[in-house]
Amino acid sequence: MTSDGTAPDRLRLIPLGGLGEIGRNMMALSCGDDIVIIDSGLMFPEQEMLGVDLVIPDISWLLERAAQVRGIVLTHGHEDHIGGLPYVLPRLQVPVYGTALTLGFLRNKLREHRLIETTELHTVRPGDTRTLGCFDVEWVHATHSIPDACALVVRTPAGVIVHSGDFKIDSTPVQGEPPDLARLARIGDEGVLLLLSDSTNVEQEGTTPSERTVGEGLAPLFAGAPGRILMATFASNISRLQQAVNAAQACGRRCFIVGRSMLKNMRVAEELGYLRAPESLYVTPKEHEGVPDAELAILCTGAQGEPLSALVRIAAGEHPMVQLHEGDTVVISANPIPGNEEAVHRTINNLYRRGARVFNSSRHRVHASGHASREELKLLLTLTRPRYFVPVHGEYRHLSLHAELARSVGVAADRVMPVDNGTVVEIDADGIRRTGERVSAGYVYVDGLSIEEADDVVFRDRQQLAQDGVIIVVLTVERSTGAVVAGPDLVSRGFIEGDSGSLFEEAREHTMQLLSRVAPDADWTVWQSAIHEGLSRFLYRRTRRRPLILPLVTEI
Amino acid sequence: MTSDGTAPDRLRLIPLGGLGEIGRNMMALSCGDDIVIIDSGLMFPEQEMLGVDLVIPDISWLLERAAQVRGIVLTHGHEDHIGGLPYVLPRLQVPVYGTALTLGFLRNKLREHRLIETTELHTVRPGDTRTLGCFDVEWVHATHSIPDACALVVRTPAGVIVHSGDFKIDSTPVQGEPPDLARLARIGDEGVLLLLSDSTNVEQEGTTPSERTVGEGLAPLFAGAPGRILMATFASNISRLQQAVNAAQACGRRCFIVGRSMLKNMRVAEELGYLRAPESLYVTPKEHEGVPDAELAILCTGAQGEPLSALVRIAAGEHPMVQLHEGDTVVISANPIPGNEEAVHRTINNLYRRGARVFNSSRHRVHASGHASREELKLLLTLTRPRYFVPVHGEYRHLSLHAELARSVGVAADRVMPVDNGTVVEIDADGIRRTGERVSAGYVYVDGLSIEEADDVVFRDRQQLAQDGVIIVVLTVERSTGAVVAGPDLVSRGFIEGDSGSLFEEAREHTMQLLSRVAPDADWTVWQSAIHEGLSRFLYRRTRRRPLILPLVTEI
Repeated sequence: MTSDGTAPDRLRLIPLGGLGEIGRNMMALSCGDDIVIIDSGLMFPEQEMLGVDLVIPDISWLLERAAQVRGIVLTHGHEDHIGGLPYVLPRLQVPVYGTALTLGFLRNKLREHRLIETTELHTVRPGDTRTLGCFDVEWVHATHSIPDACALVVRTPAGVIVHSGDFKIDSTPVQGEPPDLARLARIGDEGVLLLLSDSTNVEQEGTTPSERTVGEGLAPLFAGAPGRILMATFASNISRLQQAVNAAQACGRRCFIVGRSMLKNMRVAEELGYLRAPESLYVTPKEHEGVPDAELAILCTGAQGEPLSALVRIAAGEHPMVQLHEGDTVVISANPIPGNEEAVHRTINNLYRRGARVFNSSRHRVHASGHASREELKLLLTLTRPRYFVPVHGEYRHLSLHAELARSVGVAADRVMPVDNGTVVEIDADGIRRTGERVSAGYVYVDGLSIEEADDVVFRDRQQLAQDGVIIVVLTVERSTGAVVAGPDLVSRGFIEGDSGSLFEEAREHTMQLLSRVAPDADWTVWQSAIHEGLSRFLYRRTRRRPLILPLVTEI
Repeated sequence: MTSDGTAPDRLRLIPLGGLGEIGRNMMALSCGDDIVIIDSGLMFPEQEMLGVDLVIPDISWLLERAAQVRGIVLTHGHEDHIGGLPYVLPRLQVPVYGTALTLGFLRNKLREHRLIETTELHTVRPGDTRTLGCFDVEWVHATHSIPDACALVVRTPAGVIVHSGDFKIDSTPVQGEPPDLARLARIGDEGVLLLLSDSTNVEQEGTTPSERTVGEGLAPLFAGAPGRILMATFASNISRLQQAVNAAQACGRRCFIVGRSMLKNMRVAEELGYLRAPESLYVTPKEHEGVPDAELAILCTGAQGEPLSALVRIAAGEHPMVQLHEGDTVVISANPIPGNEEAVHRTINNLYRRGARVFNSSRHRVHASGHASREELKLLLTLTRPRYFVPVHGEYRHLSLHAELARSVGVAADRVMPVDNGTVVEIDADGIRRTGERVSAGYVYVDGLSIEEADDVVFRDRQQLAQDGVIIVVLTVERSTGAVVAGPDLVSRGFIEGDSGSLFEEAREHTMQLLSRVAPDADWTVWQSAIHEGLSRFLYRRTRRRPLILPLVTEI
């Protein structure tokens, strides 16, 4: 257990996720002997993280200071803010604070991971304040693409921090109130030491359209579609689902919900009063077959082209319950998250091949971002007038551009600090600085059942296997004489073979020659490296490929 | 050699690429006993084509009819239209026709592949007509993101075909004339049987900006940048490079060209008069170090985030000649091709990390598409007034939307036919129809030195290897007695191991148990499948992973 608490009026930010990358948002604040954690998300792996299921924050720095951690405070219920908790909580048992819907979604996860009994959950409402060590955390109502989202105001001995959470300024939200800008303005009047603000949409000029505009786009599509309507969106976007349900109801369509996560989220949201529709609007899987096409709306997951999602399987004609009909209308109510474009486009192509008409976000009003554009970001900066500014929630270019934006509205250049995960930032009466300490904040993978830190050797091997496959050379040698009693036999997988019968025969002969140069009493590692190097060279010369070569020598 | 020539007034389209996908454009026209080929491109592999270098068209249908093929006619010099030729020409030796710059770029390729001596190349100029069997092919000047691009008018016994090539309607091109719409209008007056038209930008409303607007965007950036300017773009976009060179010259910067393909293309374009700049403007690698930052512009490849390209290596700090300086300005003058977004964004993030300011296409006027938007597509349709319409050059959703657009401007619904590669379309006096014949037009891969047809087993293996790695079980058995004399030994690669010492020990014991249930005189395939199935189950239960399991039994 390390104890490196700072002076009580010295504040440290320890970003463990969400800076310089998308997703996996997590930040620790440290002051004196107290640590509080804001959010704990997960991200989906990038292309080159072969075989990885999920990527979560690295909490080794926190584990070394577990006794100082007073709790985890949540801004809202999206995966990239709460999805890491099932992996964090078993190792770091601290209370978790969040609003009703946020904890509602979290409870579903904790139940699946059998953590519900052992986790201390505290429900808060906007306006509430909770004291965690020397931190007083206040939740302030915000608007985002999920209800019950909040900004945080954190009073510390060093001064007041405002954390925007994920937000846009939606003056006409689908449910609930507009964001509580008045509260933030009052905090700004009192003086803000530090603003941490969402950088996702800093490349977008102007302001982000209200969620309500999507309802205006959906209504005529639902009303005018000649056949069925299929709408895919995020399972957590309850406001979007409310608008789809409204649009269906308005034109006499019943709703069939497809996708486990969507069903579960809608149930939670209904129980908590965030989603309202008559029970009679919904049809069961059995009933839906009897509903005429023009009277049915299917709401499903898969808006990101996720491999096993409902929409992808429907588009491929492989869904057990839903087959597309010629003339069906498909609405994809989401923008592709960077990296998912190809998968989404492939899905759309397949939908067209099956005779559907597709409306997706680029040209139709069927999606609105949940994140603030440049004018809104400027507004938050000018309302709070922070002494220091650290951009959060975005890839590094977003953080850089947000830093530049802050300078353009008058935050002094030396008080703006875009940083990567793991860079510790310190603020006190003397100013803001990087401490130089590098905290372990690299990628941590969930791969199958285990949680692993990044292991470059494994990924390098997988990369090579993916690229050119593997060739195994099996050889049995008599220990006493060094004579080859069986083999060499060559077995390959994932190596494009073409006219490989003769190539393999040659490779086998080549291996024999290599072996004839090895002394009979040589160690087996000598045998192995002779085969490895000789065969690699031979195959590269003949095929320009570099399969992974595994010589396996058995001594008997 | 098959001879299935059609009636002389019956026209067949055999799309071998570019329909329902991006890139690899190639189409055969067949009439009577004559076949003519339009373009022959290549595409870069999609994510799941693990280990593939390039994807080219499948020409097996053409090879069966080689004696009927009268030639290959080219619309312009982009990779996705000429890049397949070095792989096609060795197997199909026919004359190739194209404009000067198109053949200039092609000659570079043929030289590299040692095909220049054996290929018959015919240079044409816009307005020229060449007769290939029963086809008269006329090249019509068009505008695109490469000079010397053409549309084609093909007179056939069945009627006149117009092929748009890749185009936009640029009334103020950077060099050369606006597109020859007058010629297309006259052809329209004479009567067009079939229009084939570029679908790339059918999702874009309005018209595509002129290439000249990019020059207007570049000039102030080049003039105002405090340090060096680095500009990345396609090596083939000669008009873009001309404008960059102009912008550099106007503000007193010298140009350093980085990237082999860009250097080669610029040299060809200069020789042919498509690029003009004083020789003194350029600096050599050696000289560039002596040029003050504010007087240097670096033009380089890598605008798509290609792994080994100049820009990517510069952004990673790994380029042998160019190191970024704090305050350098980087212009990325291209949009990411679908699928490249992540790579481009990673590059931009790295550039920001090194203190550069990045201008990319989304918010700055540093790029203009080379493809026609909806209003231009409608204009071509109304100028040519075709009896039949087949959309080309796009993913399937583009083809569908382009078909819909054609119907909206009055082409009868039953005369519009979006099709996938390999679907043979027939047109005669009775109408347009799919013949029902499916031509082999799947993916053909260049993988290392060999050209292979899609082999699903190899890709499935690579996928599994990439996902969870490989575990090899080696076992030596005495043939006469069935006794295990060595092993089982387990070797793994790419399998995340974690606490795997004990796991592997258990797996080994489990394998022993499995083997004890196999009769000693059993065939080795029985041994193998016992190990394979038993161990797969064991490992999945324990790790939720499915590595490729290879049991290798050696009998001595």
